[in-house]
Amino acid sequence: MTINLIGTGNVAWHLANQLAKIPECTLQQIAGRSLKKGEEFSHLAEEVTTITSLKPATITIIAVSDTSIENVASLLPYQDTLVVHTSGSIPLETIPQDRKGVFYPLQSFSKKDTIDFTNIPICIEATTQEDLETLQKLALFLSSKVYHINSQQRKQAHLAAVFVNNFANHCYTIAQELCDTHQLPFELLHALLEKTAQKAIDHSPSDVQTGPAKRNDTNVIAAHVDMLQEDDHKSIYQTLTASIIAHYGKEL
Amino acid sequence: MTINLIGTGNVAWHLANQLAKIPECTLQQIAGRSLKKGEEFSHLAEEVTTITSLKPATITIIAVSDTSIENVASLLPYQDTLVVHTSGSIPLETIPQDRKGVFYPLQSFSKKDTIDFTNIPICIEATTQEDLETLQKLALFLSSKVYHINSQQRKQAHLAAVFVNNFANHCYTIAQELCDTHQLPFELLHALLEKTAQKAIDHSPSDVQTGPAKRNDTNVIAAHVDMLQEDDHKSIYQTLTASIIAHYGKEL
Repeated sequence: MTINLIGTGNVAWHLANQLAKIPECTLQQIAGRSLKKGEEFSHLAEEVTTITSLKPATITIIAVSDTSIENVASLLPYQDTLVVHTSGSIPLETIPQDRKGVFYPLQSFSKKDTIDFTNIPICIEATTQEDLETLQKLALFLSSKVYHINSQQRKQAHLAAVFVNNFANHCYTIAQELCDTHQLPFELLHALLEKTAQKAIDHSPSDVQTGPAKRNDTNVIAAHVDMLQEDDHKSIYQTLTASIIAHYGKEL
Repeated sequence: MTINLIGTGNVAWHLANQLAKIPECTLQQIAGRSLKKGEEFSHLAEEVTTITSLKPATITIIAVSDTSIENVASLLPYQDTLVVHTSGSIPLETIPQDRKGVFYPLQSFSKKDTIDFTNIPICIEATTQEDLETLQKLALFLSSKVYHINSQQRKQAHLAAVFVNNFANHCYTIAQELCDTHQLPFELLHALLEKTAQKAIDHSPSDVQTGPAKRNDTNVIAAHVDMLQEDDHKSIYQTLTASIIAHYGKEL
């Protein structure tokens, strides 16, 4: 199985490093406009700076920004091979080639982090059973968690990921701001933050919800809103609290 | 050092189990109206069902609901000993005794979880240096993380904890609902959820924020709001997104 990889961002970097380790795969070429010789990728595969310099491979993985996928795919100088993208929110059909697929690792990547790929869910999609099986084979070389989901489901998973990642992290950011304002170290909240995540994984998050909103404790809620100095912190507190009250009120 | 513990809830249960293990402490009595002989606490200390049956101890720890603390303290049948509560949001002054304090372990406790107390931050407060030192000694028997903070700071830490715990968990709950609605297993998001928490601990959460709101990607934001079916999910999405845009917009 030969692989071409297009892209030089976080996802491409982590994928390249993992793919280069798989004995059954040959990472043939890596394409990126911004590639500089001798940096980051040069030890992993042949580097090229134009898409048209790529030679045919079993799978071509396009790991570029959502808005560039279609254009990049249309520049590929070969046909009748499998072309996949790695995006959570872009439909399969965006790829113009007949043999198209999706290879979406559902994780937040940054180059500075080491990542244990074996636990990262990889969501795959293709138009034929044969291509799906090829993607599944590749995915299983990397991870034990492979999911065959369609483009609609993938979009929903990506939206759910915004809540789990972007929105949870913004709640952490506000907590850190509150700590900073009142001369408290944010590490005071580290154990709680970690435990909250672990409980949501070990149990169902709705089963472990606690706090003034869950109890509909209007005195504490009013005191908290009063304590918050920033308008957007107040809005977030009130909006999330109203949703929690509505959610658990239904259960009574 | 002898200790009396009042309460039979999650905090009391975990504290009793930890305190009973400390060689330098004697867990003398545990008081709770709902105590049933031979259950949960009977192997740890003498059980009593009325506050007035308690005998003097070096420290009396009141681990009951916020609204009951003052009343419980006022029933204590002895004087001139240190009386503390374990609440994040109740002021020190709520305890009527002269020798008063706070012993607040900042963690989310449930009886079914095992807890590694050594990493739990314990926030302490007292009116005299001597009592503060006694509390510090006790706290250090349990944990390596002891913070001396005042009642105002403790209230703020408790408010920040609502964001880190209650609100992050509600974001997880919404993500799980989105998964359920679209026949996706929530475990698809476990790796991301865990990584998000770990990154916020290893780095500063505001340094690792990503996503459409951070990028002010109005197309993806509009598509996401459109995909959400519940009004309160839309409100949460919009409120958090507006706050993220405002937060990172400031930095430009």
